[in-house]
Amino acid sequence: MTPIWSKKGQSGADEEIQAFLAGEDILLDRYLILFDIEASTAHALGLRHCGILSSTEYEKLSNGLHRLKELIEDGDYVLAPPHEDGHSAIEAWLTENVGDAGRKIHTGRSRNDQVQVATRLYLRDRLQQLVDINRAIAEAALDRAEQMQDWIMPGYTHLQRAVPSTVGLWMAAFAEAFIDNAMLADFTRQWLDNSPLGTAAGYGVNLNLARNVSQEAMGFTRLQINPMYAQNSRGRFELQALSALAQSTLELRRLAWDLSLFTSQEYALVRLADRYTTGSSIMPNKRNPDTVELLRARHAVVAGAVTELQEVLSLPSGYQRDLQATKPPTLRAMEQGLAALRLVPGILRTIEVDKERAEAMVDPSMFATDIAIEAAISGIPFRDAYQSAMAQDASSRSARESVNARVSAGGCANLMIPELKKRLEALGLEDK
Amino acid sequence: MTPIWSKKGQSGADEEIQAFLAGEDILLDRYLILFDIEASTAHALGLRHCGILSSTEYEKLSNGLHRLKELIEDGDYVLAPPHEDGHSAIEAWLTENVGDAGRKIHTGRSRNDQVQVATRLYLRDRLQQLVDINRAIAEAALDRAEQMQDWIMPGYTHLQRAVPSTVGLWMAAFAEAFIDNAMLADFTRQWLDNSPLGTAAGYGVNLNLARNVSQEAMGFTRLQINPMYAQNSRGRFELQALSALAQSTLELRRLAWDLSLFTSQEYALVRLADRYTTGSSIMPNKRNPDTVELLRARHAVVAGAVTELQEVLSLPSGYQRDLQATKPPTLRAMEQGLAALRLVPGILRTIEVDKERAEAMVDPSMFATDIAIEAAISGIPFRDAYQSAMAQDASSRSARESVNARVSAGGCANLMIPELKKRLEALGLEDK
Amino acid sequence: MTPIWSKKGQSGADEEIQAFLAGEDILLDRYLILFDIEASTAHALGLRHCGILSSTEYEKLSNGLHRLKELIEDGDYVLAPPHEDGHSAIEAWLTENVGDAGRKIHTGRSRNDQVQVATRLYLRDRLQQLVDINRAIAEAALDRAEQMQDWIMPGYTHLQRAVPSTVGLWMAAFAEAFIDNAMLADFTRQWLDNSPLGTAAGYGVNLNLARNVSQEAMGFTRLQINPMYAQNSRGRFELQALSALAQSTLELRRLAWDLSLFTSQEYALVRLADRYTTGSSIMPNKRNPDTVELLRARHAVVAGAVTELQEVLSLPSGYQRDLQATKPPTLRAMEQGLAALRLVPGILRTIEVDKERAEAMVDPSMFATDIAIEAAISGIPFRDAYQSAMAQDASSRSARESVNARVSAGGCANLMIPELKKRLEALGLEDK
Amino acid sequence: MTPIWSKKGQSGADEEIQAFLAGEDILLDRYLILFDIEASTAHALGLRHCGILSSTEYEKLSNGLHRLKELIEDGDYVLAPPHEDGHSAIEAWLTENVGDAGRKIHTGRSRNDQVQVATRLYLRDRLQQLVDINRAIAEAALDRAEQMQDWIMPGYTHLQRAVPSTVGLWMAAFAEAFIDNAMLADFTRQWLDNSPLGTAAGYGVNLNLARNVSQEAMGFTRLQINPMYAQNSRGRFELQALSALAQSTLELRRLAWDLSLFTSQEYALVRLADRYTTGSSIMPNKRNPDTVELLRARHAVVAGAVTELQEVLSLPSGYQRDLQATKPPTLRAMEQGLAALRLVPGILRTIEVDKERAEAMVDPSMFATDIAIEAAISGIPFRDAYQSAMAQDASSRSARESVNARVSAGGCANLMIPELKKRLEALGLEDK
Repeated sequence: MTPIWSKKGQSGADEEIQAFLAGEDILLDRYLILFDIEASTAHALGLRHCGILSSTEYEKLSNGLHRLKELIEDGDYVLAPPHEDGHSAIEAWLTENVGDAGRKIHTGRSRNDQVQVATRLYLRDRLQQLVDINRAIAEAALDRAEQMQDWIMPGYTHLQRAVPSTVGLWMAAFAEAFIDNAMLADFTRQWLDNSPLGTAAGYGVNLNLARNVSQEAMGFTRLQINPMYAQNSRGRFELQALSALAQSTLELRRLAWDLSLFTSQEYALVRLADRYTTGSSIMPNKRNPDTVELLRARHAVVAGAVTELQEVLSLPSGYQRDLQATKPPTLRAMEQGLAALRLVPGILRTIEVDKERAEAMVDPSMFATDIAIEAAISGIPFRDAYQSAMAQDASSRSARESVNARVSAGGCANLMIPELKKRLEALGLEDK
Repeated sequence: MTPIWSKKGQSGADEEIQAFLAGEDILLDRYLILFDIEASTAHALGLRHCGILSSTEYEKLSNGLHRLKELIEDGDYVLAPPHEDGHSAIEAWLTENVGDAGRKIHTGRSRNDQVQVATRLYLRDRLQQLVDINRAIAEAALDRAEQMQDWIMPGYTHLQRAVPSTVGLWMAAFAEAFIDNAMLADFTRQWLDNSPLGTAAGYGVNLNLARNVSQEAMGFTRLQINPMYAQNSRGRFELQALSALAQSTLELRRLAWDLSLFTSQEYALVRLADRYTTGSSIMPNKRNPDTVELLRARHAVVAGAVTELQEVLSLPSGYQRDLQATKPPTLRAMEQGLAALRLVPGILRTIEVDKERAEAMVDPSMFATDIAIEAAISGIPFRDAYQSAMAQDASSRSARESVNARVSAGGCANLMIPELKKRLEALGLEDK
Repeated sequence: MTPIWSKKGQSGADEEIQAFLAGEDILLDRYLILFDIEASTAHALGLRHCGILSSTEYEKLSNGLHRLKELIEDGDYVLAPPHEDGHSAIEAWLTENVGDAGRKIHTGRSRNDQVQVATRLYLRDRLQQLVDINRAIAEAALDRAEQMQDWIMPGYTHLQRAVPSTVGLWMAAFAEAFIDNAMLADFTRQWLDNSPLGTAAGYGVNLNLARNVSQEAMGFTRLQINPMYAQNSRGRFELQALSALAQSTLELRRLAWDLSLFTSQEYALVRLADRYTTGSSIMPNKRNPDTVELLRARHAVVAGAVTELQEVLSLPSGYQRDLQATKPPTLRAMEQGLAALRLVPGILRTIEVDKERAEAMVDPSMFATDIAIEAAISGIPFRDAYQSAMAQDASSRSARESVNARVSAGGCANLMIPELKKRLEALGLEDK
Repeated sequence: MTPIWSKKGQSGADEEIQAFLAGEDILLDRYLILFDIEASTAHALGLRHCGILSSTEYEKLSNGLHRLKELIEDGDYVLAPPHEDGHSAIEAWLTENVGDAGRKIHTGRSRNDQVQVATRLYLRDRLQQLVDINRAIAEAALDRAEQMQDWIMPGYTHLQRAVPSTVGLWMAAFAEAFIDNAMLADFTRQWLDNSPLGTAAGYGVNLNLARNVSQEAMGFTRLQINPMYAQNSRGRFELQALSALAQSTLELRRLAWDLSLFTSQEYALVRLADRYTTGSSIMPNKRNPDTVELLRARHAVVAGAVTELQEVLSLPSGYQRDLQATKPPTLRAMEQGLAALRLVPGILRTIEVDKERAEAMVDPSMFATDIAIEAAISGIPFRDAYQSAMAQDASSRSARESVNARVSAGGCANLMIPELKKRLEALGLEDK
């Protein structure tokens, strides 16, 4: 299909330049085309409402779009060149399959309008997935925290052994972090839950589009009112969605660091399930935690995309073609980020902690803080207590006693797992 | 005051290294010390609740902290070397001024605990400021939108004149953007509104601290339960606060781009108030929009800080000294970002638009879209309508008619200012 | 081909995890496989030198690798799944096609060794391409500078009209920038021109590999001596290559900004050749400079990749699987950056400047600087000269006189094009 | 001193806006003022050559500038408000101290001109410092490599014990890395060694400035010819200088990771000198490697600054005030990066390796690679050799034999320290 704007006798972008302009759009739009179809159906409904489409035309379009959706879901239609992008592919398919009505679908909207609404639907969907995967990770961590609640292990600061701690505390830390991540993803989803459809190229059109009809058809909770803002916001909601994702991949990076250290021979605290390890091409003796290392590296993709997006977004108001460059980093980071997070529940559920070794790694010098605080309780100013604790013999103390005394909210002896479960479930309820 | 951990006869970090380790902490802590005092007061209350402090000791500490707060607010106490940081300065002042009770304030908490809670209070405060300034910007933009609601100006895409638009549409676009920014800042404030106090160095202490008492004293809506998570979250809430700020500075960058272009001789659409311009040191004829240019550049500080934070946060669980490096970018970006945003309402309220020139810049070719869509309404498929519109004579059309026909929600003829005001006020109510 | 490390009866990474681990390697390695073949040939030569391969085996391997290279170049062999990556694909092809000798090619090297040397060859090649394209851009700019040497146009600072300038000055500015870019690319190529081959997994092997033989076969000027450094440097040379590329894409961003502004109706200084423009899907009247806008956006890809690389590189010594994540950003940024730069000479050679309008845009107030400086020459302190210049009538002055008086090195009347050409050629000579 | 451009009866930027515009310039310029004086002296020489200054005036200015330089070096003149920046401070001091000649110094240059040349001199100086500090680090690492050349330690990949290695190999890896860093810093210094002085605000002036005279006076090897390029390059050389610095801080981050792990109780391979460690405020038993951790975090400052710079540099040609925002990140990253690197030689020279423990950490499974390769040497295809090596008993082998067999260039038994020293010295010679 030739571009709509090509004029007889006037040359425009030739094949080389067209290829440069299209970039990877046609491949990337595979992630967006179903959302584009959903939005096109809503747009058709809106056109029906304002009388641009007859009811017959609307039926044809709506059925046609539904058929195309099924073809794609069944793998019977694959978005590919020579289509420039998903939008033109849909229009071409409709024109061919539902006749003149297909040619009317583009009334009152522009490609920018289309890409905006499809992207918004995509982000809303993926943020819901992010909520769900964060919750699944939190659940797995909570289960392991419960199961190994009182297993002793060293607590580290500065990578130095500090005080006795428990495996339960370690796991519950990640549980709470991912509960907060789910909460953030959910907030972000709510924030961007607004419909840009019906704003054309940023200045509206001379039609009375039923924007609220299409908004409701797509289930958006509010309208993005101003057409210029709708265009200006290209890249902005993407950025915030990645920023929510980044909190999850950052936390994953910390978890991967822990696992990478704890599975070394020096720590030997944790064993990964075999399926997450590989061998070496040159060293027969190795079992390497490659999966964990690639999970650790994954945040880089998200951080890179965040930089990439912001580098694009130094522009005046109104659509500029630069904004097309917001698509690749958004899709790359979101898809790769979610793929990484999906592996985490399985890893958490299958790690084996060496209970005996973990407890044996606690040595008496790690009780000095307890001694100092006990002295402080007895009335000695902390600085003095601290000084004297260095000199005391702690060999009669046990790690068990130490962790049992940590009774404040959240401490080793009071992990508050029920409260964390309540928060997790509350999040669930809010989603409905 | 010598570091608490210095031992007789054992050498430790010497002066050169101490200076390296301290960095700019003592200066940066000027932004944090009042929050540290607030948290110290809450911590003292907690220590009173669990019996570490007698009621007399608590009174002394509480009064002492209040006195120190007043001294700082009145400029009679200035945080400065040789204190290493705000935490040790407070402890030193208390020890000197309230005697032994002052030495007890550090019982059951570590410097990390202190910096975490002070930073959390700081972020909560600054996010509320961010909500407020975003609202003030939105209000200014809405006022100008209302005032210049139907002033004609060209609408641009690709920096090319596209269709007739209005100054009202332009201003309302920013109003809605900053309303959404306020909503995001508010969400983010809610997200991080949790108390880390009472988690010590990440493994709790052998005390039954009344963590909920101190939480409530500081007005946090929930507890950050897990002590290890409390330490692990260093940098994480900072990052998200900057990410909310970044949406505002990004939007500011767009506004500054518009003003930079519109105040050029080529556009000559807008005139800035004199106070926002300067002259040149070599060219007598110049009046330069320096303020606008520095506002445009300001997002860079936030984006740089976001990168800086994430570069630090590749660490295993548990406190590492690296985390101290999260403080400078957080404070730098937050303070400089807010300072820039604070100038925006004044700029918006004082720009003068050249109404006549703005309207005169609309030329007849800009009516082609209207013609095409009218044809589409009359039943011609849009692609055909588009082709024929190129050939039609539009000289009899007016920009006024064109914008008046943009009646869909948010369009030039239907800016929905009351709805935007309602959203703005709703945000306000939610805050209470 | 099963992974070399798979053991009977022991489970390892299953299909799902294998897919996660492999990532896009097999597609990305299409950019690297010819370099891998070059390095494999050099490695075979080294193995021959130290007696691991007989001369017959070497011949077989060498011929086999040459044949594979031709197949790939002719499109008769396409790297694709189920191969995990290019390295295993080469080994599999050799084993099948040259028998047992094929199985010996992996002696004394690891996959890490292979990916390092192939990447180094790739970077060296692409940096040479970067030198060449920078030179081509500089040549085009110099030609246009020469051709429009004395065409008057306004000189802008702060986007405000400042003093008269020339199109020649504008074009020569880019010429010099891209000459410097070529110089930087060339320096960077020299910097990374060292052979990591023969360092195995970072600890060498118990063989006397003829590392200098393979180094010379690949034309590297020096050896990367230390095997651990060889592994540690993964990502480091990539980063610096992107940093050289970034200077070119940053300069391109500035050029694209100029063209974007100058082709607007407000400036109307420059017209792009039709092939670089497109129309709008909704506005029949538009001709948009999409190509220029996507060129402007391209630096974002490079900047994003720079962030992504650095986010990965927070690791201790020794190979970690995280390092695999350095490949996608490197290839993405390098290929896309070069593709964008390749369009620039054509654009520069075809832009049309509106000579008359450009000159007409210079107004008398732009002579104030000249007046002030003339007064300064006559002995008046500059500050006083500046003040009085504001008041003088400049209507009798001409832009031509103004630019003709700019005779200092590099000024409008003294662009020093021959010197710039000399620098350009000197760079050329250095390359030989 | 009122701004040169302030006009009677015309309001301009008021105090609040002036403060916003000035930012931290006056403090940052403390790093630049001596370079500004050097450049001002060279500019005066140029003005003398083209007759603007009489020889008396030149002498006065030159002597005055020399006197001011001495005052600053002696701490008797401190740059501070109410001066807006270093440039106006110099001019004010001269006017006051050398009379009318002082008012002539600004003839033919603008503040932009001044800040450009001062920054260029600063960068050249700091890159030379970077060369020197990289060399000092390499020397220290080489000395330690020589001293502990054959000390056995485990070689790690994936943080898993892989094959026997030596402390010499580890240290020599860093030596070579920092030699390459010095080479890069040197290349970068050469690249930016060009004089922008005499280009005014980017369009030259109507004077015949002796640009080559001032260039030579400052020891620049070439002229930055084009005035517009001179302004456009603001931020560009800064960026590349930081990019050279980033390679050093990245390598430092790796070294710090190694030291952080190796000083943990789990590894217990390395002990830091006491002066680089601190205690804990709550845990009496701790000795923490804070210095190493802050060194690890330092790259973040550089990476953040690189992002910040690039975010600013999305601008059309010609000076824009945004460019002022390139100064803070440049100075912050350069000063903090160099300060961190300066600590490294001392750390390297004082680390103590636990020789016995290091050797004891090598276990027999780590000989499997040797066995496989020996089999490969004897003619068995490597894949088969690899498989059989897993089954063999390696208990009779020793780590000593293993490392002694690593004889290829750079291997444990052939570190090529003399060649590394030669490279280090060659760098030195090149500098002269």
